[in-house]
Parts: sequence; C-alpha cells; structure tokens
Amino acid sequence: MGSVASERTVVGWAARDATGHLSPYTYTLRNTGPEDVVVKVLYCGICHTDIHQTKNHLGASKYPMVPGHEVVGEVVEVGPEVTKHRIGDLVGVGVIVGCCRECRPCKANVEQYCNKKIWSYNDVYTDGRPTQGGFASTMVVDQKFAVKIPAGLAPEQAAPLLCAGVTVYSPLKHFGLTTPGLRGGILGLGGVGHMGVKVAKAMGHHVTVISSSSKKRAEAMDHLGADAYLVSTDAASMAAAADSLDYIIDTVPVHHPLEPYLALLKLDGKHVLMGVINEPLSFVSPMVMLGRKAITGSFIASMDETAELLEFCVDKGLTSQIEMVKIGYVNEALERLERNDVRYRFVVDVAGSNIEEEEAAAATTN
Amino acid sequence: MGSVASERTVVGWAARDATGHLSPYTYTLRNTGPEDVVVKVLYCGICHTDIHQTKNHLGASKYPMVPGHEVVGEVVEVGPEVTKHRIGDLVGVGVIVGCCRECRPCKANVEQYCNKKIWSYNDVYTDGRPTQGGFASTMVVDQKFAVKIPAGLAPEQAAPLLCAGVTVYSPLKHFGLTTPGLRGGILGLGGVGHMGVKVAKAMGHHVTVISSSSKKRAEAMDHLGADAYLVSTDAASMAAAADSLDYIIDTVPVHHPLEPYLALLKLDGKHVLMGVINEPLSFVSPMVMLGRKAITGSFIASMDETAELLEFCVDKGLTSQIEMVKIGYVNEALERLERNDVRYRFVVDVAGSNIEEEEAAAATTN
Repeated sequence: MGSVASERTVVGWAARDATGHLSPYTYTLRNTGPEDVVVKVLYCGICHTDIHQTKNHLGASKYPMVPGHEVVGEVVEVGPEVTKHRIGDLVGVGVIVGCCRECRPCKANVEQYCNKKIWSYNDVYTDGRPTQGGFASTMVVDQKFAVKIPAGLAPEQAAPLLCAGVTVYSPLKHFGLTTPGLRGGILGLGGVGHMGVKVAKAMGHHVTVISSSSKKRAEAMDHLGADAYLVSTDAASMAAAADSLDYIIDTVPVHHPLEPYLALLKLDGKHVLMGVINEPLSFVSPMVMLGRKAITGSFIASMDETAELLEFCVDKGLTSQIEMVKIGYVNEALERLERNDVRYRFVVDVAGSNIEEEEAAAATTN
Repeated sequence: MGSVASERTVVGWAARDATGHLSPYTYTLRNTGPEDVVVKVLYCGICHTDIHQTKNHLGASKYPMVPGHEVVGEVVEVGPEVTKHRIGDLVGVGVIVGCCRECRPCKANVEQYCNKKIWSYNDVYTDGRPTQGGFASTMVVDQKFAVKIPAGLAPEQAAPLLCAGVTVYSPLKHFGLTTPGLRGGILGLGGVGHMGVKVAKAMGHHVTVISSSSKKRAEAMDHLGADAYLVSTDAASMAAAADSLDYIIDTVPVHHPLEPYLALLKLDGKHVLMGVINEPLSFVSPMVMLGRKAITGSFIASMDETAELLEFCVDKGLTSQIEMVKIGYVNEALERLERNDVRYRFVVDVAGSNIEEEEAAAATTN
C-alpha cells in the first residue's frame, strides 16, 4: 500500500466526540491504488445524517470523524488502472466508497445494498484505516465510487444531488413511479423533501407537499412549484385527499404515525420511507391489505442511478437549492440544520475556504 | 324487485348474538333478478373470519347473521340476462357479492378493492336487505360473483379455494412472485397457510414453513411437501436463514412482531400480510430501507384471479385438505377452528345435512 513517506497529509474538519463540534484535523490518506482516483474537494453538502453520525445518535460513531458525503471535486491524480476518469474531471463522491463486488446486490449493480458496503466516513476501509469524508481538502476514492459530473451542472449545485437527490430518484425509478401524470406526496420539506418536489415535478407528476403546519405553503407552492399543499393536522383536508396518491416519499427523520398517510394512498400506492428511525413505526394490517398498499423504503442509489440522475437534472434543467457557506461556518450550519433552519441544503465551499485556519477566524467572529 | 309472495323462503344457520352460536334461521331471498343466479348450496368452508364476524370481534356485526363465504353449489335458476352460467353448472361464491362497477378498481377488474363492495354476509345488498352467507340451503347471487368450478375439481375441495386459496394466489400473481425457483416463507400453517404451501410448491418455489414451535414440522415437511421448516424462537436457525427469502406470506391473524421475519427477506423481499389485525404492528425503518423490502398485504382476489386459480389447481392437480362435517357439527367446528384444531379446513356438507333439523340431533349427541 505504499510507504508512509509517500502518503498524503491532508486537513479535514473532524468531530472529536459526541458534542459533534468540528475542528481542523490532520491525517494521512492512502497512496493512489491502481483503481483509485485522488479528488481535490471543491464542495461538500451537509446532510442530516452528518448530525446523527457526529453526535453518535446511532451509537456507532468513532472519532476523530471527518463527515461529509455529498462531495464534488476535481480529479488530480489517477491510478494506473483507472479507465473511468481522467485528471481534470469533475466528479462526485456520495455515501459509500466500497462494496464486496461478489454478492447478489453487487452483481446486480445495486451495490448500495451490499452487506459489506463501506461508508464514506465512520467506517474502516479495506486497508484497515478509518474512512474520512468530504469536509477535507482531498479524498482518495476507488474509481467505481466517483461519478462524473456532467457538463451543464454547476458543481456546487451537484453536491446535494449525490445524497438527497439520488435518495428520492432511486425509489421513483425502482418502483416504476416515473410515468407523467402520477400523483405523488412529499412528506416533509427539508433537504431530501425539496429534491423530492423538484424531481417529481420534473417527471411530470402532480405533487402534493404534506406538512404538519401551513408554514411552508408559499415556499412549496410558489417557490418549488408543488401543485397542492396538505396540512396533516387538518382533518377535513386529509379526509378529502383520501385515496388520491400513487406514492408518498416520506422524508420525516423522526417518529411519526403512518396511518394518516396510508389513508391518502390509492390502490397499490406506496409509502416510501427515507428516514432512519429507530423508534418503531406502526400501522394496523387492514390499512395495507384493503388497498394492497406497501410500506417500503429505499437507501440512496446505485452508482448507475446516480449517473442517471445527474443526466436527468441536466436534461430537465433541475438544480438543488442551496445556501453556500465557508468551512468556518460548518458548526453553525449543523446547528441550523438541526433546527431545520435552511432552504434547503447547506453546501460548504471547501476549496474556497482556508481549511486549516478558518476555525480561529470563526471563533473570533461568532 | 318482485313480489313478496314469490320470494324464496330458505333456512340457514345463523348467529343471533356475539356468542356466535349458530342455529337454524328462516329468511327470504330476493327474486331472481335479470343478472342473478340461484345457487343450491352443496358445500361451504369455514374461514377464521367467520369467527370474527359471528362473535363481533370487528365490532360491526349485525344479527341474525348466516356466515359462510367459501360456497360451492349448483345453479338451479338463472335470470333472463345471465350469460355466464347455465342451470346445472357447478359454481363457487366467495367473500364478496357486489361492487359499484364505476370506480377505478372496478374498472381495472380488481373489484375486491372497490370501496362499495358488498360482503357475502353481514352487509346490506342493493335492495336494502341483509346479505346472508353459505351455511344455508340457497343463495341468490349476481352472475359476476359466481365462478364456474372447472371439471376435474371435486366440489368439496374447491370450497376452501374460494377464500383461503385465492388469498394466497392473488398476491403471488400480483407481486410477480410466480417464477419457479423463488424462495418463499409461509408464516403460520392454518387454512390459509396450508394453501400457501400447496400453491407455492405448485409454482415451483422452495418453501419454508415458519412456525412458533416445532409441532407441525412433520406435517409441513412430509405431508404438505414443504422444503424447510423454521422455528421462529430458534435464534440460531433464524440467523442462519437471514437474507434468504423472496417473500413471506404472513397468515398469522393475531398481533406478532414483524422484524424477525423482515430479517429473513432478501433485497426487494416482500412481507405480505393476510391477517386482519387491529392491534398495531411495528418495525423500525432501517429494516425495510436497507434492503428495499416491502411490508404489504392483499385481500382475497378478483373474480378473474379466482377463475385463474381454479384452473391452476386443475392443471397442477392441487387440492385443499379438508375435514368434512355436517351442519349439526358447525358450532363444534368453529370452536375447534378457534383453537387451531383442524387439518386444515372444515367444509360443511350443506346439501348432505338436514339443515332444518340437525340442531336437535347435534344437541342430543354433544
């Protein structure tokens, strides 16, 4: 795996403990293996999962941890057997960076369901080292897990597509929900939900945003172009909307009832869970049986689907909506995300930040 | 709807209250409408739902109630516009006897999902009268809801196919689970479960019966021809079977955990609920998301699928396994069914019973 002397030393912003506070951290990357590409990070989106991981909400966090899995960067070096990318290419890196390549999901090119998948950070790579994410100057990634960012897509806009975007695209594709004219519900209007509205609208669907209050009505309708807005606490409107939706993309990341939403689905409707919720969700069996409805879920997307979504976005002129910040703002951005105070995704301008020195500056200005 | 004078007076066995005890009950049937057939009942299977209904477990029972929705009989009269059946035909009547014919499910020939469907009993027909089921000498049924019993199928064997049989056939068909070589799990080995094993085996599947104890192992393996038997309390066997099944047909009609069974499913596996359970079932979202699994359900079958299943049974030489009883034994049969003491379905020999007088005989011998 190369000598220590030739390993790259990089700086990332790492959490050191479950407070989740990020600060500069110096570590080494592996050498460029035959099928690896070295990526100079340009931009990295902030996903809700970054909070779960840095704060150890899932109980499996290892520190120091450099989060970030919506990474866009430039290829600055390629291994001798790399065929997919060239130096100078703009590429994206998402939630996983490795898989076994032997199992049924891997052979079916749905490597995101491989039981031995390697997460972009807070995991251990095949060389035994911890994986570290995209809030860092540089990453080394197997070519398979870097996707080309097509021309016509602004790189900072592309970052949120690599997790939030593909997460909504994959189930619509897989479950056959791409036909124009379908009626979809988007439950929750955060980073994933806003991409849900955009992707579903671009597919030609009639899109209803479902939310617990009317606060986001104007945003959903006027700004994101949703066709309808349903307040889940408004019993009359919920009853009027019964049996009307082909699918619901459920982006709510905390415990919530399912039955009010199952009632909105038509025959054969699908309730697609996107949020990791470790508190049990519940329903009574007739709610699914008497309309052959399905409660299902989906996890990010394959690399093939990721490439497909990026092309889809270029074709449809579809972008994410982001608030760009420097790395020195990342802790405040994480706090704001935790209270859902962002429209709709933070993207860190990594290359435009002084990654080693911003903390001091941030500390003095905040 | 015809004069009262010409209405048929029939005797059925009815529950009068939530004790669920059945006894002879005399009532009138509507005249034969233009599209109706009059059916002399020969056999009627006993389904677990009959207990729920006669004992008012679902809280919507109306008395007197003649249960029975696995009916096989002979057409003895047809209305002037009946084209589907002729006098002398052997026909089956199942769980529903009416639908709106206007809604999306009706127009798609999945009338079992019509919101205005009319149940075979404990419902109100279009003429305002209560519907009454198959533990009776005669029924009047719209031709659409009578299915021809094909030659080569013993009528008493056909009865359980009309509910238990179609209930397992429909989801396998609908969800694309008919390919030979699939690996299926059948959870629970009652009336529906035993049909599940038989239908899945006839499709060429590898079938695992999953049960809470090893009591039924020999029956499942040696008698019904299952390929494997899994005891759900045996943690080591359950762990060894993880990620191995394409589907589970869940016939358990009472509350039970879902997660141990979700773990048995492969990527894209389907957990199909067949039991009406009004106590909430629960699961954590990663159990479905990380394998794109679906918790779904299905309700009986369309008339088209019912006809298809009957042909399938003839083709495959597939029959139900029944214990035939006279009507005088029906209360004891219901009690035995409630404690799961039957292999695997009771069928009442209605035409071979003296429906008006058996109760007295039963009372003296029991």
